[in-house]
Amino acid sequence: MDSTVLKTLPFEGAEFRPGTVWLVGAGPGDPGLLTLAAAYALSKADVIVYDALVGEDILKLANPVAELRYAGKRGGKPSPKQRDISLTLVELARAGKRVLRLKGGDPFVFGRGGEEALSLVEQGIEFRVVPGISAGLGGLAYAGIPLTHRGINHTVTFLTGHDAGGIVPGEIDWQAISRGSPVIVMYMAMKHWPNIAKALAGAGRSGGEPVAFICNATLANQQVLETTLAESVNDLERSGLDPPAIVVVGEAVRLRAGLDWLGAEMGRRLVADPLMAKDSRDAG
Amino acid sequence: MDSTVLKTLPFEGAEFRPGTVWLVGAGPGDPGLLTLAAAYALSKADVIVYDALVGEDILKLANPVAELRYAGKRGGKPSPKQRDISLTLVELARAGKRVLRLKGGDPFVFGRGGEEALSLVEQGIEFRVVPGISAGLGGLAYAGIPLTHRGINHTVTFLTGHDAGGIVPGEIDWQAISRGSPVIVMYMAMKHWPNIAKALAGAGRSGGEPVAFICNATLANQQVLETTLAESVNDLERSGLDPPAIVVVGEAVRLRAGLDWLGAEMGRRLVADPLMAKDSRDAG
Repeated sequence: MDSTVLKTLPFEGAEFRPGTVWLVGAGPGDPGLLTLAAAYALSKADVIVYDALVGEDILKLANPVAELRYAGKRGGKPSPKQRDISLTLVELARAGKRVLRLKGGDPFVFGRGGEEALSLVEQGIEFRVVPGISAGLGGLAYAGIPLTHRGINHTVTFLTGHDAGGIVPGEIDWQAISRGSPVIVMYMAMKHWPNIAKALAGAGRSGGEPVAFICNATLANQQVLETTLAESVNDLERSGLDPPAIVVVGEAVRLRAGLDWLGAEMGRRLVADPLMAKDSRDAG
Repeated sequence: MDSTVLKTLPFEGAEFRPGTVWLVGAGPGDPGLLTLAAAYALSKADVIVYDALVGEDILKLANPVAELRYAGKRGGKPSPKQRDISLTLVELARAGKRVLRLKGGDPFVFGRGGEEALSLVEQGIEFRVVPGISAGLGGLAYAGIPLTHRGINHTVTFLTGHDAGGIVPGEIDWQAISRGSPVIVMYMAMKHWPNIAKALAGAGRSGGEPVAFICNATLANQQVLETTLAESVNDLERSGLDPPAIVVVGEAVRLRAGLDWLGAEMGRRLVADPLMAKDSRDAG
């Protein structure tokens, strides 16, 4: 991908003014999934404070004279404290910079964007939020798994397997979520997958239920592991797959046999009736 | 907003070829929330088959010679049947057109994109999916309500109040969702709000819990009604607000007092501790 030229403001009334901070979602990875507003912000920013999940192909769209500041984990080093990041944003804005805080996915979906914005409010700094495509949505689309599908679900639940405070499965009502949501999409769930799989099975989800792990979602090195709840712990271990990953549990995963358009581009033969195929397999 | 020039492909390897269909999410409304891939598809398409929720500011980005076909409800006329839309897409692709099927939000989030894609697979038509920013995410960002926030939730559930088949509240396990998800985001829930509010209260959600209705999300005429579960039916009726709307239930709505950046641009004074403000109000 090379340069994209945005001649004008991406939307009326929005101008990236000096001394303000834009909290922007960079999407799941594919630069094509950046919004026009995010591309505009990249082209105008004086400083870009970016996270670990923001790739080089996206940073390439930045104004060439913009300063790039990394604010994620790198190697064995601890990540900057949330408070330090907030202080940095405040200082840069006070110095009159156009400050772009660039986060993977969407800043308000397991991204702590609300906390960062409140620290700006506390210091009287103006800000704007530009939502991005969250990996739980974009990653599923690139894996050929619809979040909702007639006959499967009217509800879908997103949850996180851990956050800045540590493992969260114990704080989640797995019984309620398992009963209420035929399809569950999980962020940061791979590391603690054995615990989570046990919690789901204990909450009554069937061992035969399909599960997909989507690693490096929407990027050229995207990998998808399809398995079942009962086999998922072993299959994941054998796969050698690494985070970051999105995990999906539910019948929607079966639709991938019909909707894996990215696989089809590489020769996979899609079936038009992936749910029927399931029925006949169950009967066989 | 005027023309946006995309000189090159928005991502490597993706080319909108004649005889194929791209199922593209147009986002929640603001053209700035279109993805680069969607803008590319608009600039290349021969025919654009679009839904009711896709606005003129977005269609203006289309290739000027592209044919625009409306596939939504208009006035009192019934909307085209899903089967008819699928047949149209197949016919256009067979005629060698680059067919852009443009849907509001994201095609895989309460958008029936999976069904349309399977009908293409059945006829051997190649397709690609370009995810968009769903109104439940983008609308909340523009209302200043984070989907997730530390201390409030590790889970969030999306659901629809009705679908092509009619009202769905009876098919939803309200007890389970109310227990499992501190924050619930609802699509197409305004029309049947009295039933839904009753279901939530019956499932144990508190009458004092905050609720927000976000109408015309992310557009210049966006309107947000903040209320409580107990007062929501009356307040909504008095407001005179019309669909389309996104409804959010949960403590996250209180954060709007600190994070309503769009309101701040028009003079609203934001508070840095919206959750503390709640505590003191409760104590008062």
